[in-house]
Amino acid sequence: MILYSIAWSVSEKPGSQAILPLARANKEVYIFRSKLKLGIMLVRSARRFAGHSGRGTRKWTSVFDASSFRSVTSRNGIATTADSDFLSSWRQYSVATSFKSQGILRQGVAENVEAAHIPADISADELVVNPSAFLKPKPALDASKLRFGAEYTDHMMQIRWKEGLGWSNPRIEPFGPIPIHPCAQVLHYGMECFEGMKAFKGKDGRIRLFRPDLNMERLHGSATRLGFPSFDKEALLDCIKALVLVERDWVPDKDGFSLYIRPTIISTHPHLGVGPPREAMIFCVLSPVGPYYPTGLKPVRLFVDRKHVRAFPGGIGDAKVGGNYAPTILPQLKAAQRGCSQVLYVLDDGRDGGAIGESGAMNVFFLFKKDDDSLELVTPPLDGVILPGVTRDTVLALTRSFGNIKVSERRLSWNEVEEAGLQGSILEIFGTGTACMIQPIIGLVKEDNTEITLSFDHDAASYWLSKPQGSSTNANADGSEPFNLCGRLTRTILDIQYGHSSSSWSVVLGE
Amino acid sequence: MILYSIAWSVSEKPGSQAILPLARANKEVYIFRSKLKLGIMLVRSARRFAGHSGRGTRKWTSVFDASSFRSVTSRNGIATTADSDFLSSWRQYSVATSFKSQGILRQGVAENVEAAHIPADISADELVVNPSAFLKPKPALDASKLRFGAEYTDHMMQIRWKEGLGWSNPRIEPFGPIPIHPCAQVLHYGMECFEGMKAFKGKDGRIRLFRPDLNMERLHGSATRLGFPSFDKEALLDCIKALVLVERDWVPDKDGFSLYIRPTIISTHPHLGVGPPREAMIFCVLSPVGPYYPTGLKPVRLFVDRKHVRAFPGGIGDAKVGGNYAPTILPQLKAAQRGCSQVLYVLDDGRDGGAIGESGAMNVFFLFKKDDDSLELVTPPLDGVILPGVTRDTVLALTRSFGNIKVSERRLSWNEVEEAGLQGSILEIFGTGTACMIQPIIGLVKEDNTEITLSFDHDAASYWLSKPQGSSTNANADGSEPFNLCGRLTRTILDIQYGHSSSSWSVVLGE
Repeated sequence: MILYSIAWSVSEKPGSQAILPLARANKEVYIFRSKLKLGIMLVRSARRFAGHSGRGTRKWTSVFDASSFRSVTSRNGIATTADSDFLSSWRQYSVATSFKSQGILRQGVAENVEAAHIPADISADELVVNPSAFLKPKPALDASKLRFGAEYTDHMMQIRWKEGLGWSNPRIEPFGPIPIHPCAQVLHYGMECFEGMKAFKGKDGRIRLFRPDLNMERLHGSATRLGFPSFDKEALLDCIKALVLVERDWVPDKDGFSLYIRPTIISTHPHLGVGPPREAMIFCVLSPVGPYYPTGLKPVRLFVDRKHVRAFPGGIGDAKVGGNYAPTILPQLKAAQRGCSQVLYVLDDGRDGGAIGESGAMNVFFLFKKDDDSLELVTPPLDGVILPGVTRDTVLALTRSFGNIKVSERRLSWNEVEEAGLQGSILEIFGTGTACMIQPIIGLVKEDNTEITLSFDHDAASYWLSKPQGSSTNANADGSEPFNLCGRLTRTILDIQYGHSSSSWSVVLGE
Repeated sequence: MILYSIAWSVSEKPGSQAILPLARANKEVYIFRSKLKLGIMLVRSARRFAGHSGRGTRKWTSVFDASSFRSVTSRNGIATTADSDFLSSWRQYSVATSFKSQGILRQGVAENVEAAHIPADISADELVVNPSAFLKPKPALDASKLRFGAEYTDHMMQIRWKEGLGWSNPRIEPFGPIPIHPCAQVLHYGMECFEGMKAFKGKDGRIRLFRPDLNMERLHGSATRLGFPSFDKEALLDCIKALVLVERDWVPDKDGFSLYIRPTIISTHPHLGVGPPREAMIFCVLSPVGPYYPTGLKPVRLFVDRKHVRAFPGGIGDAKVGGNYAPTILPQLKAAQRGCSQVLYVLDDGRDGGAIGESGAMNVFFLFKKDDDSLELVTPPLDGVILPGVTRDTVLALTRSFGNIKVSERRLSWNEVEEAGLQGSILEIFGTGTACMIQPIIGLVKEDNTEITLSFDHDAASYWLSKPQGSSTNANADGSEPFNLCGRLTRTILDIQYGHSSSSWSVVLGE
């Protein structure tokens, strides 16, 4: 009887190297290694491999004889070695490792060996790094020259997915174009979702992410809404961390600068019918960015857009998907013609002048001073129409912790904003987002070009921004410090992001 | 004085070949040929070229001396030959034509020649064909095997665009993957729009398009809404026609079969900021398709979705953009679980159970029998929420021409449909679209799994489908023919599409 060992998961880094020594040591080893997490190893008379606990085999779990192997495959769906993807990945592997692939392959086919396919999840353990032969010079950390999203690092991370096969091993590859089938769903049906995150390098030289679990959660939600396959959120985050560590020299070590992280999921399924994707990929690129505004907080104006609707109840305004962005470009250009840097979307729901939504790239907050001199910070609720921003959640939590401001997630009508604005009882308006962090707003320009104007206390904001690093948590209890919520929030978040003050929100890499 | 001839448009097919003979004939010719429509040719002492009317020069319009040339460039914006795109396209051109590019290039640079850039529109005259070395076998015209959108022809058409430069010359290239920058807007922000068209081969062997001007009009509208550059609609159509003619052997010569045409516009602008595209491309692929249903009209059920909203007033439901499709996949899967092939979107606008919209991939029509036995065909109006379908418009026009049916584009409430359905006064429901053409619907399944069911007169439909080709226009005036609007419309449209009956809607290629 011929026994077969089946390695359900061969998972050294890089995965392929783990198999090689074993294979070379035994002339009778047949290896069928796809790009899948499920590596399958067939070994004649190889009982001695069972339970092997050395390098490269620590995840082996079972030994079957030929008959039980077949029964396993039939339980889990069968793909023969004639499967073209399987063969092609095998050829790639064997070329890379100088194996006599054709001989082994033919032998395998001749024996009609069948491989069991269990859809694989992402495994950070199987990450393969293919370093770039050419490293670019890093850009100068000059805030006035480093445009957002225009510079890219040397590498990118990719994970492929195929229906029935699952997620491939993650790969860190040289940064470069992705060849995409002209019929891939991502080019036709907006089958794409993404996240925006940042890595920060503190004075201690350590690299930190800010609440990355929230980004993974949201990415998973966006993907699910579009019909993309599920994935292990922690494993994906581990792969992203690995990419950032490979590019650690690209993380700017200057205050206010950071490495922007863009994980993206696209459907590469080449089919013109509208349907669920059968092929997809996750990729992640990195871009060094400066502070949104080089010299402190620079307030901007928003155009109050009651004509264009970004999202609506029953739609997918709460998912970070491509299709939510393309339609905002034209309204944004029209806003720019009126001197406004972005749009404030107000959804006409037939009540009180409509509901304040968000700003397309930012959530929005309004700080009201009530008749009794109490303060209320209001932002629209997560009703499915606005994006559940990470910075939004951060601002809510921090402001609640400050203690002297009522914090409300509630419907905010345009009439309420306009009335309060005219009465001078809006203290601050600001937008929040990963790119801009806290963006003060001093004007809301209406269709008729009239404007609700606020003043912005630059001195108070500067006080907070120039406070010693790490001192944000030591606000004077007596309230003797100048009041500026934008400034205080910015200082507090920066302190956490750069590690000046400790917080469970800050995740240090490589530890 | 040195005179310069400026060829504003060197436009033989392929464009580059047109210049070559001239250049070889005159050692003093300097040619700077970008990928633009605006080809610039500088010729020392070349007055003799002025007004030349031979091949390759018939579009020359002006001769300037050096000083006026400079004044032209300064009026239209200046890009020096150090412009990297210009240089690179020149190198590509000169490599292709075995020119001593480097020498000429250096000479040009040394003289500090400046090239005028006038953003160029699409020019079908400049189309270049790069034939594939390998032609695939054509698929068998077996309606049960030829899946929609799964087979592709040997070639595709591409036109690139860059801000300031305009549209490149159109190219027909071997079908293959498009290398896309991982930060290109199309992968992140849904910057994509498309069309669906078909080419039909009649018994006479001639190839016809069906109302292609409407597709170009709509594509231009979709592109404009997303901030894409404008383009010459007729020129693009000419390029698409050229592609179809290159692939004429791929147009199935079997009734009900056709060549599906998918022109697409994507933003290739590699920038993570959300803003207007600075680079884009149009591409067009072709896919041979069979009849939607091999054996006549096969009625389906729709799931009445009141939870998911496809589009909304103020949104972009009337544009054919990628972001309108990705969100429909999950609702469609849920509908499939209930035995429904698609979704009927009903928008809750607070009145009468909501407004009937469309079906995600089809417009919808309802044929009511009134109390006085008169007939009314109703479809929702073009209010910005539904797609202005070409087949929709065709059905409206044809049904009006039939004469005995009132045709209404009006708001249709769910309550009206439900009531009429329960009373049995809905004669027919059908969807329309380029892919399915006329799709009879016999059931509307509600959230509570109750269903409004219609009967479908298969015999009457078959009567119309099996009528002699070209006889659709000869409906018996006495009304003695069996009534089935789906069947009659299908027969009438097929007759036009395949050239059995003459119509201005049918555009014959190559004539």
